[in-house]
Amino acid sequence: MLVLGGLTCFDYLNKKTNWKKMKLLIFAFFGGAHLLSLCSGKAIYKNGISKRTFQEMKEEIASYGDVAKAIINLAVYGKAQNRSYERLALLVDTVGPRLSGSKNLEKAIQIMYQNLQQDGLENVHLEPVRIPHWERGEESAVMLEPRIHKIAILGLGSSIGTPPEGITAEVLVVTSFDELQRRASEARGKIVVYNQPYINYSRTVQYRTQGAVEAAKVGAVASLIRSVASLSIYSPHTGIQEYQDGVPKIPTACITVEDAEMMSRMASRGIKIVIQLKMGAKTYPDTDSFNTVAEITGSKYPEQVVLVSGHLDSWDVGQGAMDDGGGAFISWEALSLIKDLGLRPKRTLRLVLWTAEEQGGVGAFQYYQLHKVNISNYSLVMESDTGTFLPTGLQFTGSEKARAIMEEVMSLLQPLNITQVLSHGEGTDINFWIQAGVPGASLLDDLYKYFFFHHSHGDTMTVMDPKQMNVAAAVWAVVSYVVADMEEMLPRS
Amino acid sequence: MLVLGGLTCFDYLNKKTNWKKMKLLIFAFFGGAHLLSLCSGKAIYKNGISKRTFQEMKEEIASYGDVAKAIINLAVYGKAQNRSYERLALLVDTVGPRLSGSKNLEKAIQIMYQNLQQDGLENVHLEPVRIPHWERGEESAVMLEPRIHKIAILGLGSSIGTPPEGITAEVLVVTSFDELQRRASEARGKIVVYNQPYINYSRTVQYRTQGAVEAAKVGAVASLIRSVASLSIYSPHTGIQEYQDGVPKIPTACITVEDAEMMSRMASRGIKIVIQLKMGAKTYPDTDSFNTVAEITGSKYPEQVVLVSGHLDSWDVGQGAMDDGGGAFISWEALSLIKDLGLRPKRTLRLVLWTAEEQGGVGAFQYYQLHKVNISNYSLVMESDTGTFLPTGLQFTGSEKARAIMEEVMSLLQPLNITQVLSHGEGTDINFWIQAGVPGASLLDDLYKYFFFHHSHGDTMTVMDPKQMNVAAAVWAVVSYVVADMEEMLPRS
Repeated sequence: MLVLGGLTCFDYLNKKTNWKKMKLLIFAFFGGAHLLSLCSGKAIYKNGISKRTFQEMKEEIASYGDVAKAIINLAVYGKAQNRSYERLALLVDTVGPRLSGSKNLEKAIQIMYQNLQQDGLENVHLEPVRIPHWERGEESAVMLEPRIHKIAILGLGSSIGTPPEGITAEVLVVTSFDELQRRASEARGKIVVYNQPYINYSRTVQYRTQGAVEAAKVGAVASLIRSVASLSIYSPHTGIQEYQDGVPKIPTACITVEDAEMMSRMASRGIKIVIQLKMGAKTYPDTDSFNTVAEITGSKYPEQVVLVSGHLDSWDVGQGAMDDGGGAFISWEALSLIKDLGLRPKRTLRLVLWTAEEQGGVGAFQYYQLHKVNISNYSLVMESDTGTFLPTGLQFTGSEKARAIMEEVMSLLQPLNITQVLSHGEGTDINFWIQAGVPGASLLDDLYKYFFFHHSHGDTMTVMDPKQMNVAAAVWAVVSYVVADMEEMLPRS
Repeated sequence: MLVLGGLTCFDYLNKKTNWKKMKLLIFAFFGGAHLLSLCSGKAIYKNGISKRTFQEMKEEIASYGDVAKAIINLAVYGKAQNRSYERLALLVDTVGPRLSGSKNLEKAIQIMYQNLQQDGLENVHLEPVRIPHWERGEESAVMLEPRIHKIAILGLGSSIGTPPEGITAEVLVVTSFDELQRRASEARGKIVVYNQPYINYSRTVQYRTQGAVEAAKVGAVASLIRSVASLSIYSPHTGIQEYQDGVPKIPTACITVEDAEMMSRMASRGIKIVIQLKMGAKTYPDTDSFNTVAEITGSKYPEQVVLVSGHLDSWDVGQGAMDDGGGAFISWEALSLIKDLGLRPKRTLRLVLWTAEEQGGVGAFQYYQLHKVNISNYSLVMESDTGTFLPTGLQFTGSEKARAIMEEVMSLLQPLNITQVLSHGEGTDINFWIQAGVPGASLLDDLYKYFFFHHSHGDTMTVMDPKQMNVAAAVWAVVSYVVADMEEMLPRS
């Protein structure tokens, strides 16, 4: 193959012998100057794959058109429609929210273990991991000055509690870390209230994760952070926060957008605000949990894996239906659809329902530590963890060659008009693999309402749409099946 | 005038002598057959006003173009911009919600009395009324079976409480009154949960107002009603409910859309649901309150009135900023704008901030009883009580002639592109007058988000948009000023 122009031309044809492609190689070798030029000139490349190989790959993927249609028909129009929604509703109505370290989460894991076995999936098993155990306990906040007002709060994951009598202190309202620095001399002994504007989740969430540390650095006794939400109906949102070595730990919670804005207005009028904050939050020793695994074992390359995933844990409010019940259940549904159609891909389709994602991908990290020895066998890692609203495409991280293949795979979803492949495939639970070079894909969907409900009491089945879940599951099943069944693994950089 | 074709032709020229119009009458009388035909043929009518009179009226209204522009400029682009928002924020941040019978409401009334005086308005006074005094007290609901789940509730206005130990009973979930009737034999001793779909407010709200009575008729011990809301982030909404003579009074509260749907799903799976409901709700004797009144006294017909209004009371959650702080404050702003421009209309512009609207227009009814003796002097009654989001026009109830005039008045708002006059001008507080034949107008605005927040903890300043309030105030001021300043009162049917 090196004779034909070096690895760059044909490294898509890798480890596994493919006789059809080998015949084409021989043909190319004897086919004269024209064909040689096809494999050496820049013009013949599309995304780093030679035209001939690319064409071959296109043909191979196009041959899955009927399979893709069968999956779509079953998921969206057939007997399986609304199944992932109904399954999810039953679980979350039965169990409720599933916080890391809680009995609810372990109950959900046991139910899922049974569900996956009853569904006829293979190699259903639980992989033990150790996860954090934090509980919010009883919590309350009351504005004592300038008037009595009960403030809705949600303590942040890993926060310490207050003394039983609470912390009563004057408030310093700031709208940014910069303002906090400028007014550092005013912060000592106060409760810092952050009224940062909502820009987007990734930019704004730093106030939730770092707000307590930054407030503690300037001597604050607690911090209350405006919920990271794009719409509020007086709805507090929780999430993880991070202490820092060498910085005093202070209690921290999110308040509603409404109360943050009101206190900001009061402060701008020179009004003194006093709050009494009580939080029973406590961190307990790490506890036992499990990543939940099920497979459709590969027919030809069973040691090779396409990993499809979502996380089963949630915050302790609402039902964890959207974050990430939906992602977990369309991942299960992907395997169910493939099984129901009697399909068995060449390599193994592995469903993993992660535990303790909300505490920083704790279950996924331990899975990675255990399994990274086999990293060369992971063709694609997939996670759905930003909702299962109407999908608009796939986010993908991988080599240009792999991207070209994913674009062809997504073209199979033309019947649903969902064919986009964008950049930034990612997910807390799959990033370990992606950073190590494994191609990664995440579901891209309509995020318009996502941060209305994220980490709030409002994350329930009411948010979920069975028809949108059907479509999301179809996308998930087509992508995972085709990538698992193609003759070659996805090429890496 | 009868010679010229009868009253139908000229009854727009009523009580008051108008020399300009009189000259036209004389001209018409002597103007020959052509002009006579203009006043007798059907073709010459537009909305019941003769072409000549209509033309005259058009010209009169068109002459207010500069005044309208001045109002718009001051309200939307000038020194007064954001004033109604800032004034409202200060009141509701200072006082909080203003439930009928509460100290907060009376504090707000006293503040407004001072505000209106300090604003330089005339005849600022408080008109005593007696209003209901209901308090929700402490309240809670917990699902005991099939799993422990704390249910967010808001007791409904006028509901009785439970015994101190609460009411613990099995749940019967229904989606309609029809279903309740069909399953009446199952209801005895149960807590009826209504999971009625949200169609629109006026159709769906009957479950909130009548749900307890209908449940009690079939032997239920309490009723929990899905909040009447078009979007929920686990947000309960309160509101008034009505008991019925001869039907046992049972405690009743609203739950969230999310919990109503969850219990409906559980029930459909045959799961037994048990709830413990505790409500400390209590009705106290009626208490003293006031409608708050201020005026710009008319220069020519001071006894004649254009009434501009909103209600100052609210529910006891959130800040009552949207319902109806916004309506009350754009009504105040309308008078402020007119005063600031040095305008004084011919008839009196009267601002009324109603009390106890949420209890069924209690303050407004007593105002009507007191003032209806002067009903012939009321040219127009206006109320803004469905938000002060971006206005799209005016809703109007009145004669066809009056509507034609209102259409011309609204054409003055062309610079804001808000010129629609629709039907169904109404408002709890002005309906007494409208039903008695007085023309009535209400602000029509973008209601998209209104029922996200209505009667919930989320009704706060966060909902309000200062720029939209500016525009709403401009519309309100132009309409009220021009109608108050036109030579003639609005014609009635």
